[in-house]
Amino acid sequence: MTDRFSFTLHATDGKARTGTIHTPRGEIRTPAFMPVGTAATVKAMLPESVRATGADILLGNTYHLMLRPTAERIARLGGLHRFMNWDRPILTDSGGFQVMSLAALRKLTEEGVRFSSHIDGSKHMLSPERSMEIQKLLGSDIVMCFDECPALPATEEVVAQSMRLSMRWAQRSRDAFGDRPGHALFGIQQGGVTEDLRGESAEALKAIGFDGYAVGGLAVGEGQETMFSVLDYAPGMLPADKPRYLMGVGKPDDIVGAVQRGIDMMDCVLPSRSGRTGQAWTRRGQVNIKNARHMDDPRPLDEACTCPACRSYSRAYLHHVFRAGEIIASMLLTWHNLHYYHELMEGLRGAIRAGTLDAFVADFHAQRAAGDIAPL
Amino acid sequence: MTDRFSFTLHATDGKARTGTIHTPRGEIRTPAFMPVGTAATVKAMLPESVRATGADILLGNTYHLMLRPTAERIARLGGLHRFMNWDRPILTDSGGFQVMSLAALRKLTEEGVRFSSHIDGSKHMLSPERSMEIQKLLGSDIVMCFDECPALPATEEVVAQSMRLSMRWAQRSRDAFGDRPGHALFGIQQGGVTEDLRGESAEALKAIGFDGYAVGGLAVGEGQETMFSVLDYAPGMLPADKPRYLMGVGKPDDIVGAVQRGIDMMDCVLPSRSGRTGQAWTRRGQVNIKNARHMDDPRPLDEACTCPACRSYSRAYLHHVFRAGEIIASMLLTWHNLHYYHELMEGLRGAIRAGTLDAFVADFHAQRAAGDIAPL
Repeated sequence: MTDRFSFTLHATDGKARTGTIHTPRGEIRTPAFMPVGTAATVKAMLPESVRATGADILLGNTYHLMLRPTAERIARLGGLHRFMNWDRPILTDSGGFQVMSLAALRKLTEEGVRFSSHIDGSKHMLSPERSMEIQKLLGSDIVMCFDECPALPATEEVVAQSMRLSMRWAQRSRDAFGDRPGHALFGIQQGGVTEDLRGESAEALKAIGFDGYAVGGLAVGEGQETMFSVLDYAPGMLPADKPRYLMGVGKPDDIVGAVQRGIDMMDCVLPSRSGRTGQAWTRRGQVNIKNARHMDDPRPLDEACTCPACRSYSRAYLHHVFRAGEIIASMLLTWHNLHYYHELMEGLRGAIRAGTLDAFVADFHAQRAAGDIAPL
Repeated sequence: MTDRFSFTLHATDGKARTGTIHTPRGEIRTPAFMPVGTAATVKAMLPESVRATGADILLGNTYHLMLRPTAERIARLGGLHRFMNWDRPILTDSGGFQVMSLAALRKLTEEGVRFSSHIDGSKHMLSPERSMEIQKLLGSDIVMCFDECPALPATEEVVAQSMRLSMRWAQRSRDAFGDRPGHALFGIQQGGVTEDLRGESAEALKAIGFDGYAVGGLAVGEGQETMFSVLDYAPGMLPADKPRYLMGVGKPDDIVGAVQRGIDMMDCVLPSRSGRTGQAWTRRGQVNIKNARHMDDPRPLDEACTCPACRSYSRAYLHHVFRAGEIIASMLLTWHNLHYYHELMEGLRGAIRAGTLDAFVADFHAQRAAGDIAPL
């Protein structure tokens, strides 16, 4: 344990890196996947179960928590860790992305964003200063700068103006964050799919100085090929001795491609959301448990998986409880998906340490290409 | 372990009894509460968690399972225990009660009940012979006779005719069940709220001979006072050396009153259903977690309770996740309710053994009368 936030790089393989982020609340093995606990819960999971799947850190959503139950209430109750019974690291986003995608009647100015709650219509303001205040009230270990992210496609001029606003907000975030030993503040690179703008953004952030750097503004509908084309250069613009975080990614093959390109941290709702819609992720790809071909299948989702859903239940059972609308379907499929994601991260970390990432990735793609087991 | 079904009485206190039901799949401590796993899951719980709350046995619903995923499918998949990952005893009802309350277009004849599924409208028949066949396909440890139960209030003539039909069906159930060592068949006493009819029913069942006897036709809207007035005499009409099972009961004070009157087994959806609607049962009575008075309350539901919901979460958290529609609210409240129910059963068993049931019951009522803790 440590009372400071720091990052140790253990090994690299090509551009891929493996390391450890040290925080007072515990270590984060990188590359790390962060399950999303939007409203102070990773949906359908107890936090000890999330930990059992291999999670070192969770993500909380500032936008949702500020509206309900409110950051001030969580602070009075002892902070987000205690509130949600998770004593390991928590990263909170800034609210910037979600206020633009979820809130109603939003108005963007230099100061910040005024908006109405999607829950009850109440009026709120998010700015760099307010976002820092909320994330401090929550007790977040890794705080994200308040930024603005235009939807793609957008003209280069719109992307440039937005990026420069985000860089001014990054400075205001840094100033408002102050000096909080043991807590980290991450800057967020913007610039869309334009290399020059990504470079300008990286220089602006490095001039301010952060504990880690996110690649923002991707995974917003641009497609994997475009995302990878940006990741071919964007992470390399950021300091090599700090963690690099790709926000909102992704599917297993997105994750593998991002790690190959030098990303250390990722988050996504996909494994938990998929669990609730009957989609399982396995080394063989995606399995739709709703499909009638599973109705009589006594085999587990994946006979090599050690999660509770695969150890103790048949596809036939998972199909039945999903069709019957039973909560246990969401519980078991979410558990499986998070287990698979973290097993994939562990595989990536091991391969980078061993210098065998290319072989690992080739095997990853070969298993997926072979597809799911045939019906009995 | 044993390869036979048997019942050992350990102690009595007044009419109350404590004992052990021995089955090849494990022992059942009585008085026992049986959580309901309608569609092959106790809603919002993993089976190992249900066991951790203190459950020795679950109840499965023949009506639901015969329609989806079907008894034949469960049999092909190795039986209900394996299907739902519960290796301890399972009691299945006969389908008789639920076909009359849930199915559409039902037609009752001497042969049985023809009906249409409430799920897909498909046509089915339930009879004593078909109910025995289904419960055998499921692999149930304790099989219930197929019976008919008129809604109360009903005229004495209707109740008498219905009871006599159920007694003819009890004989047919016994004949169809055959000899299945290690599996038990329970008869069901009917007769409404009429002592003579209850007596006639008990004599008919004893003449046939069963491994246990249920008091049926109660907890169908007649109210606690009427139910207790029947329980003042009905259990005593049944053999003292066999388990006595009160079907579909109940609230904690119903359970306590039933145990005082000589009941050994009960089942009810209440602790799990309440958990999903935001109702918690504690030694202080019922707590509605939706109520705004819990919004800022850092205290657990019950500071003396050792369940995960009380050990690790505040009322404020439970209120928040319930209001936010999060699945974890159902998971935690159901866990708490089942834990409380089984703790109550353990208390009752201990008091009967110690000969201190009156004091235990007085304390139970005193704690409830004092009510929930005041808001902060």
